[in-house]
Amino acid sequence: MKMKGLAMLGIGKIGWIEKEAPQCGPLDALLRPIVVAPCTSDIHTVWEGAIGERTDMILGHETIGEVMEVGELVRNFKKGDKVIVPAITPDWGSINAQRGFPMHSGEALGGWKFSNFKDGVFAELFHVNEADANLALLPEGMDPVSAVMLTDMTTTGFHAAELADVKLGDTVCVIGIGPVGLNCVAGANLMGASHIFGVGSRPDCSRIAREYGATEIINYKQGDIVAQVLAKTKGIGVDKVLIAGGDVDTFAQAIKMLKPGGAIGSVNYLGSGEFVKIPRVEWGVGMGHKAINAGLTPGGRNRMEKLASLVQTGKYDPSKLITHRFEGFEKIEEALLLMKDKPSNLIKPVVAIKW
Amino acid sequence: MKMKGLAMLGIGKIGWIEKEAPQCGPLDALLRPIVVAPCTSDIHTVWEGAIGERTDMILGHETIGEVMEVGELVRNFKKGDKVIVPAITPDWGSINAQRGFPMHSGEALGGWKFSNFKDGVFAELFHVNEADANLALLPEGMDPVSAVMLTDMTTTGFHAAELADVKLGDTVCVIGIGPVGLNCVAGANLMGASHIFGVGSRPDCSRIAREYGATEIINYKQGDIVAQVLAKTKGIGVDKVLIAGGDVDTFAQAIKMLKPGGAIGSVNYLGSGEFVKIPRVEWGVGMGHKAINAGLTPGGRNRMEKLASLVQTGKYDPSKLITHRFEGFEKIEEALLLMKDKPSNLIKPVVAIKW
Amino acid sequence: MKMKGLAMLGIGKIGWIEKEAPQCGPLDALLRPIVVAPCTSDIHTVWEGAIGERTDMILGHETIGEVMEVGELVRNFKKGDKVIVPAITPDWGSINAQRGFPMHSGEALGGWKFSNFKDGVFAELFHVNEADANLALLPEGMDPVSAVMLTDMTTTGFHAAELADVKLGDTVCVIGIGPVGLNCVAGANLMGASHIFGVGSRPDCSRIAREYGATEIINYKQGDIVAQVLAKTKGIGVDKVLIAGGDVDTFAQAIKMLKPGGAIGSVNYLGSGEFVKIPRVEWGVGMGHKAINAGLTPGGRNRMEKLASLVQTGKYDPSKLITHRFEGFEKIEEALLLMKDKPSNLIKPVVAIKW
Amino acid sequence: MKMKGLAMLGIGKIGWIEKEAPQCGPLDALLRPIVVAPCTSDIHTVWEGAIGERTDMILGHETIGEVMEVGELVRNFKKGDKVIVPAITPDWGSINAQRGFPMHSGEALGGWKFSNFKDGVFAELFHVNEADANLALLPEGMDPVSAVMLTDMTTTGFHAAELADVKLGDTVCVIGIGPVGLNCVAGANLMGASHIFGVGSRPDCSRIAREYGATEIINYKQGDIVAQVLAKTKGIGVDKVLIAGGDVDTFAQAIKMLKPGGAIGSVNYLGSGEFVKIPRVEWGVGMGHKAINAGLTPGGRNRMEKLASLVQTGKYDPSKLITHRFEGFEKIEEALLLMKDKPSNLIKPVVAIKW
Repeated sequence: MKMKGLAMLGIGKIGWIEKEAPQCGPLDALLRPIVVAPCTSDIHTVWEGAIGERTDMILGHETIGEVMEVGELVRNFKKGDKVIVPAITPDWGSINAQRGFPMHSGEALGGWKFSNFKDGVFAELFHVNEADANLALLPEGMDPVSAVMLTDMTTTGFHAAELADVKLGDTVCVIGIGPVGLNCVAGANLMGASHIFGVGSRPDCSRIAREYGATEIINYKQGDIVAQVLAKTKGIGVDKVLIAGGDVDTFAQAIKMLKPGGAIGSVNYLGSGEFVKIPRVEWGVGMGHKAINAGLTPGGRNRMEKLASLVQTGKYDPSKLITHRFEGFEKIEEALLLMKDKPSNLIKPVVAIKW
Repeated sequence: MKMKGLAMLGIGKIGWIEKEAPQCGPLDALLRPIVVAPCTSDIHTVWEGAIGERTDMILGHETIGEVMEVGELVRNFKKGDKVIVPAITPDWGSINAQRGFPMHSGEALGGWKFSNFKDGVFAELFHVNEADANLALLPEGMDPVSAVMLTDMTTTGFHAAELADVKLGDTVCVIGIGPVGLNCVAGANLMGASHIFGVGSRPDCSRIAREYGATEIINYKQGDIVAQVLAKTKGIGVDKVLIAGGDVDTFAQAIKMLKPGGAIGSVNYLGSGEFVKIPRVEWGVGMGHKAINAGLTPGGRNRMEKLASLVQTGKYDPSKLITHRFEGFEKIEEALLLMKDKPSNLIKPVVAIKW
Repeated sequence: MKMKGLAMLGIGKIGWIEKEAPQCGPLDALLRPIVVAPCTSDIHTVWEGAIGERTDMILGHETIGEVMEVGELVRNFKKGDKVIVPAITPDWGSINAQRGFPMHSGEALGGWKFSNFKDGVFAELFHVNEADANLALLPEGMDPVSAVMLTDMTTTGFHAAELADVKLGDTVCVIGIGPVGLNCVAGANLMGASHIFGVGSRPDCSRIAREYGATEIINYKQGDIVAQVLAKTKGIGVDKVLIAGGDVDTFAQAIKMLKPGGAIGSVNYLGSGEFVKIPRVEWGVGMGHKAINAGLTPGGRNRMEKLASLVQTGKYDPSKLITHRFEGFEKIEEALLLMKDKPSNLIKPVVAIKW
Repeated sequence: MKMKGLAMLGIGKIGWIEKEAPQCGPLDALLRPIVVAPCTSDIHTVWEGAIGERTDMILGHETIGEVMEVGELVRNFKKGDKVIVPAITPDWGSINAQRGFPMHSGEALGGWKFSNFKDGVFAELFHVNEADANLALLPEGMDPVSAVMLTDMTTTGFHAAELADVKLGDTVCVIGIGPVGLNCVAGANLMGASHIFGVGSRPDCSRIAREYGATEIINYKQGDIVAQVLAKTKGIGVDKVLIAGGDVDTFAQAIKMLKPGGAIGSVNYLGSGEFVKIPRVEWGVGMGHKAINAGLTPGGRNRMEKLASLVQTGKYDPSKLITHRFEGFEKIEEALLLMKDKPSNLIKPVVAIKW
């Protein structure tokens, strides 16, 4: 069977292609997307060649889908189910998953399969490995357009707060308040931070950061952010820094604004630069207990169910992130190009699909 | 110098007494209270003899105070400072504090000094050990009447959530929604719980529980709470149970409503009963990974500063707890007796004092 | 195909039976045992009816096996491989496994399948679910007779030390120094305990306990063990108590000998008694931070590989546990009955099988 | 009163000086050294100007001492007591100590006082702050020459293993096997590592590394250590890397040999170089969960008591580290210069002093 999808044709080029539909193994499921969202990673992948050359690879890893077919060993899902599909779909029996790092199943980042090792979700049909373990039912009454945020933006942003182990009453700085960074703010707030400094400049992002719990916005256009943070903390610095923007040089800023005994939680994809540089003196000449944690988000079913429960109980509202809405499968291209152009009022575009 | 205070004269008896004012050692401070709140523990202490016989011991351990004198080694406080005085004032250099358990400095519960090992705060003057480490400046602009909640109710309730290690998206049951239990709700909510079941019956408590993040109220008068919780969770149970009420038998209910791999966080003072009884079968015949954690709240300066930062940033509002307000030193008795009588609309009474 | 096995015929009765050989699903493997060891749990299962009635259920869950057949999705094992088969073989994609509790996959204790939910390993052929995730290659040169200890005794004993979170320099008491308790001693020692008190009376166990790191043996026949431990610790008590013996009443002793801030790690199967009773006063009236942790051992491939690496590097020697050796499939019955009779010089019997 | 001591006169210069003896505050103690050991940090301090200019500052921070005087508030020590004096003597009531980082009391590294903020222990008399909290009785029968290792070498080396959170069965690489690195090996071994690769070249260090638990020695003179480690681990890498040698560039090697989900624990003082450089690609483009932890050792009384208990129970033997022994106060200079010259057979020199 043939299917259509929006693909990376090669570095710098996208286009609609037709290719063989995926096969459904005994543990797997095939789905069609009912909502998708393009991600900055798609942009990195195509236009920066971030994961290397790919040919005719279908893009996309953020989706709410409808189950079309399940393998013979799948117990918990059936045709017609509407499900949350996490961007990260681990091999749960792998050694690294058993070690506590399912996102690295098989190899580093091995849980990230869509639009990386296999075709993504911008297709008429896409494949999910270990369906029982990697899909979560879309809860009754939950808007799929909101829910698509959970698959990557929410889980990734929240993971930064987890990596830094935000505690009750912590003072936190979030560097970068795009869609992931806004979820760092929300995650830090949900985990009990008091002061949350959001570093950014765009008005819409700043507004939503405040709605998600940021207590102050630090505009990097108004001076060195380290100096601004130290000024606001009487020179003491912050307990935690969450990184969801910038580049390899951002970590030096983070180290400089951290208390001894503080921690960095980074979920930023680092696309270029040979080294992340940690400033020796401000790192306490190697003895300051400023922990540096950085990792890919967890995925899988349980993670999605936990996040969905926060939406269901009104503790967290992902719809704030959505600034642009499209309808129709063919509009995926326009949404993706919008993500590439990044107009200043863009946070996340989504595409709803009727079949 | 003589001073006046409201004291436990013996088990079952209170009265105003005059006694020698405390001495100020080199690390200590003497303070007078500007706001005090009676605590259920004061009631247990006097009328249930919970900590044994005491004679002419001044009661009270919740207060905002004004510094009247500091020892020669005190660096961070001076006469006239208005300060938050934690109910628990550890000996920070003690072995148990170094082990990570300052509340047990010296011996089990040894950080609880006021109205236990020494005179409490219902006095014209009271003594604080290790002032630099145990006092926190009342932040500019913070209402001392609200702030007095932090000294015991807030920190104790939040500690239950910490003991159970509430995580993002956890389903939590809080047993008991009096003033401590309401803070268990708030603490679980601040740490990222999604569904929070509050077990109680009083309308005011139920309303505030919802304001603090409870998603449902479970009325024990309407049937077995275990059955109610299991019904609401499709038989799966909850991730965490926080205990702030009931008695030694409450733990059996908690175990029965917990998932395998779940945890109990209890901060309930257990005043009677020989044993806490853990039901063998529901505890997974000893193999179910249902962790049982129970402990006295942390105290000290850093803890109070962290909690105050949550109030300052509007993340947490302790004033909701205060249902009855009194003015004047002599009104402490009336407030204490009110706590004893526990009218159904009572959560916490406070007494503001002008000198 | 028919196969033979030693089965529980009903409560109190064992016998050799013939039944259909198991089927091999796509992820599974079929193996034959090359070494087996009976376990006290087998005794509980048959003669105490600990898990309820079972009819013609083949016993046994400790084995080193040889792969006879693998399912079509199995990648890492093939016919003829000699493998360590953990007693606990989780469903790795299950929600509880994703939550960090694979031993409770599906339901509480759901990872314990052999001789519980399905036929055990005292058979000509036995079935292993999720073979890639649950088998570990027997390392080149490792004695399978030693290695069979890893499957349950070692992992279970070590887990007690993990549950109590033994730290460098901790003083630890291990209650019960049978085969699991000896591994509690070894586990505590490997994790850095200094003083280790082993509670037992049998000379062989006492000797091996010392070889595994116990610094003193406490003989319960010579007086109250709590009093003995307190006497040896100047009244201070121990940091951790590991429980691998006794019954529901053992926990009260453990609580009484723990410091505030200490922890219990129990891996003891509790076969009878309605309640585990925690003494209220010594538990710090519910505020002493004496944590109670109890759980089934982890299993699976990574766990077995980690344990095997300790044997390979000479850090841990499981062969000390083996006191009785048999040869031949049919000797399993004799070995099992020996376990039932428990002569005083018995620690573990093993049966080597040549096919 | 005047006293004599071996001082840093300025960068690059040492000499014996006379200066005023220290004063004893109410919480403090004055001691005289009975054993001292020079440390590589002393060399960095004087000849590399690592902590900046100092004039007439007495050197030394590793000592076993005899109490000569105690302040009026000291309860647990008296004149004549022989005590272990940790190199790190925190202010236990400080905010950072309350946050869990006593070594950073007051400011980053603020617990390191001897030969940094105040005179060190190479003096006829030296000052210890918060004596009750910072001194530990030398246990009856313990050789003070061995015990002096605990004050810095042991605690620092063990802390690397703690920072990396070494677990049962972990494969660990220790970079640098001088006196601290050897204790990293011992610490990793005590915490349950299986394979331990020690990176070094000196025969004596290699021999002792093996005695402390190293399973292989990797000689950096025989090729790239990353390649050697990967070859020995079938390309998988290690669970943990402990750093006790090298420089800012060592971290890049550590990252390259770590598994995803692995961790670095570094206790290496970094004396020069602007940045620690983390290689972006091998760090999983910022998403590999390779945690970087680095910090100053804990100190204080409880820490010393825990370490001493490991010596008392024969679990750890610090005497292996001592290669050169001197007698007499005036021999401190010779021992220090030996540390500076670092002959290839030197691990640690100690000086025993009779008064």
